[in-house]
This record gives sequence, structure tokens and C-alpha cells, in this order.
Amino acid sequence: MIIKPMFSYAIRHFSSSMQQQNNYKTRLWARKLLANAELSRFYSKKKALNGKELKSAVIIFGKGAEEMEVVIPADVLRRAKIDVVLAGLCDNKPVECTKGLIIVPDCHMKDVENRKFGAIILPGGQESNLAMAESDKFGEFLKKREEESYIAAICSGPLALAAHCIGKGKCVTSYPKVKSDLESFYKYVDDEKVVVDGKLITSQGPGTAFLFALKLVELLKDKQEAKEIAKILLVDDYC
Amino acid sequence: MIIKPMFSYAIRHFSSSMQQQNNYKTRLWARKLLANAELSRFYSKKKALNGKELKSAVIIFGKGAEEMEVVIPADVLRRAKIDVVLAGLCDNKPVECTKGLIIVPDCHMKDVENRKFGAIILPGGQESNLAMAESDKFGEFLKKREEESYIAAICSGPLALAAHCIGKGKCVTSYPKVKSDLESFYKYVDDEKVVVDGKLITSQGPGTAFLFALKLVELLKDKQEAKEIAKILLVDDYC
Repeated sequence: MIIKPMFSYAIRHFSSSMQQQNNYKTRLWARKLLANAELSRFYSKKKALNGKELKSAVIIFGKGAEEMEVVIPADVLRRAKIDVVLAGLCDNKPVECTKGLIIVPDCHMKDVENRKFGAIILPGGQESNLAMAESDKFGEFLKKREEESYIAAICSGPLALAAHCIGKGKCVTSYPKVKSDLESFYKYVDDEKVVVDGKLITSQGPGTAFLFALKLVELLKDKQEAKEIAKILLVDDYC
Repeated sequence: MIIKPMFSYAIRHFSSSMQQQNNYKTRLWARKLLANAELSRFYSKKKALNGKELKSAVIIFGKGAEEMEVVIPADVLRRAKIDVVLAGLCDNKPVECTKGLIIVPDCHMKDVENRKFGAIILPGGQESNLAMAESDKFGEFLKKREEESYIAAICSGPLALAAHCIGKGKCVTSYPKVKSDLESFYKYVDDEKVVVDGKLITSQGPGTAFLFALKLVELLKDKQEAKEIAKILLVDDYC
């Protein structure tokens, strides 16, 4: 059939900005290296050594994390060539998210405990945020970086920040249903999808996750890059 | 420290609609069953036997799929209690998506080849769509279901449909950069984020993935349910 090769050709030569920009050899190497989860972790550890601390971010998530709030920031920041590490809160095993998606993290949080990051990102998801709130190790991880890194939380994520006394008195937003639990600790902002107060960035939920991620691109890189990525992604409410 | 238990309590009792609605015993059972990827596959096979064909969907994806276009439809449809199966195009092994996220599929496409689905969903991602376009098995999977199921493709996904002659002459949209490859085969629509023509649903890219998924909820369930989910997710451009 002639039609199939024709469209295969179209896909092969789909020279849009959605394409990865690595050259053939690099991609071949990356494919081999990333062939399975074990090797992926090794790759992340290697990346952790090459000193790109300022343009880097770690997304920490545990069982029950909101999958869209893990994946949207990871994808958007990687498009801005920010080195994103997905770190499992409890270990480096596959994580079952709140709606059943299973994501293989790059590493365990402890594997990057001595690494600096431009941003630390907390997706929502009740069970994951509860485990964060109850984890002393996670609290130490945050406190050690509170001065130097952006700390960004979405949905019910700000509850885990409050549990570790991060940013007391600052302006925040969150998933609206947890407002009452936060307003004694923070200045709560109702009418903004993303709130930035110094190094603290907060956002409301899955429907604001693109804007949350683009704000992080803006802060870690620049506004122009965030605008270009919004255009590529067809996100039309970022400005 | 008093603050941590306080916020742990708040998270535990976060009684929003974001919560899973299973009771304790069911959740305990589900947790044990879903403890690892192998068991997850077994779970999906069990679900495949219980006859919920009409309120079900399969998302088929291969290496290089656009992760947000896999995860957003999966999460949104599961919130509408649609039984969503994530099927690997080539096998049931973890799939590395285009920006490096590794997702464990529920099963291999061939594990559900005799099952009926309300919708078949094709995320974008050049490499994944190319593999779909070149796969006879995938073409057979689509053609067998063309009359009875919704077929939904986003981003460059419609190229894989065209490669298998699905819906010739119908109205479609896609990621704008692939328009020229599609307009000889379809009636191309530029100015709509989601296009429905009979059983064929198409959409533009990551930034339209929520609307694409909500349209599928509307078609598989009803408009009211889609509106409620949009509200829970804080997606404010669905109407």
C-alpha cells in the first residue's frame, strides 16, 4: 500500500520544533543508555556530577502523587533544557500515582541529597504530600536549600511545605479545598493561578500546571524562553 | 515539633473531590495488587474481562510518545471512571517517552487485541507515531474497531491514522506543523482546538490535551460529567 510509506516519510521528516535536537550519534548513545530503568538511574547520577546546578530542578514525588503535576513540569522544563531529575521520595522503585499511572523515577531522593538544584518541585497528590509532611529526611532536604533554591509546590503540595515550616508568612496559593489549612500559616492568595513570593512559587492544581511550569522556566531561564515554549506547546494563556 | 502533625492531619482529612473514593479495604487490596509493574499488568488483564467495553478506552503508545499527551487523557478519563488501559505498542516493557519520562504500560497492545473499547487514543510524539504508521498489527487493531469505537489522535497522531487510511475525507486538526502532510487526505480545520467528525476526534498538541480528554469524557459519558471534572481540575477554558 502506497499510503503508509508516504505518511511514514512525513513523520520521519516532521522537522518541527517538537523534535529533539540531539544529533544522530548522541541519540543512539542516549537510547542505548536509557534502554531500561536501571540504566536511566545511572544516567541521572552521571548528570548529577556535571555541575549544571543553576539550570536544574528536582521533582520529588511518592506513591499517590498527581501524575499530571509530575509530568507537565518535567516535560516543560526539559524543553527549556533545564536538567530535571525525577526523584522518588521513599526509594528508586516505580511509583504508582493517584490515578494508577506507574512512573519510573530517575533516582531516590537520597541519591541527590548533596546536589544543588535551581528548583525543588512538589507535585500534589494527598498520599504523596502526607508522606512528605511526615518525612524528616524530606524536611532536611528542603531546609538545606531554602535560601538558594526556588521551592515550588502545586495543588496540596503547599501543605507539605507548611509541615516543615517553609516560607512562613509568605504569599501562596493552592488547590482551593486546602485553603483553610494554609491561611493561618501563609498570606493566602485566591485569585492568581501562580503566586511567586521571593523563592517560593505555588500554584492551584492540574489545570494550572502548564502556567506553573512556564513560570519556573521564566525564573530559571528567562521570559523569552518561556514564551517560546508556550508557543510550541500551544499554551495560549501564558503571557 | 507541633506544626508537622498538624499539617499531616490536614492532608489526611483533605476531604476534597481530588480524593480516591474507594473504601479502605478496596484500597488496601488495590495497593497490594498494584505493588509492582508485573502485578499491574495482571490487574489490567483482569479488568479486561469484566465487560465494561463501552466506558473504556485504550491509550496506545510507543517509545518517543509525548508524555503529557499520554498522561493527561489517562488521568482525566480515569477521573470520569472510564476504564483506561495504557498499552505498549511494541511490548509491555517500560516506555521511554520523548522528554525522558519512563512509564510502565499496563499491558502490550496484543494483550487487548480481542477486547472492545469505547475509544482508542493515539498520543503524539514523532518516534511513536512513526512506529504506529509502520505497524501492520496497529493498522489491523484500528481497522477492526473503526466502526464501533471513537478513534482519537492528538498532535502528530493523525499522521499514523492517515497511514492506515482511517477516516479519509473527514474533518481533522493536528499539531500545526504537520498540516501540509494531512490536508490532501482530510478536510483540515485550522481554528479549533478539538475537532469531532463522527467517530473521529483530533486535537492540536500538549496545550489542548485537557480539552481533548474532556471531549472524550463528554462523548463516552456526558457533558455534565465533563464539566464537573473540568471544575475539579481547575480547567477554565472548557465549556
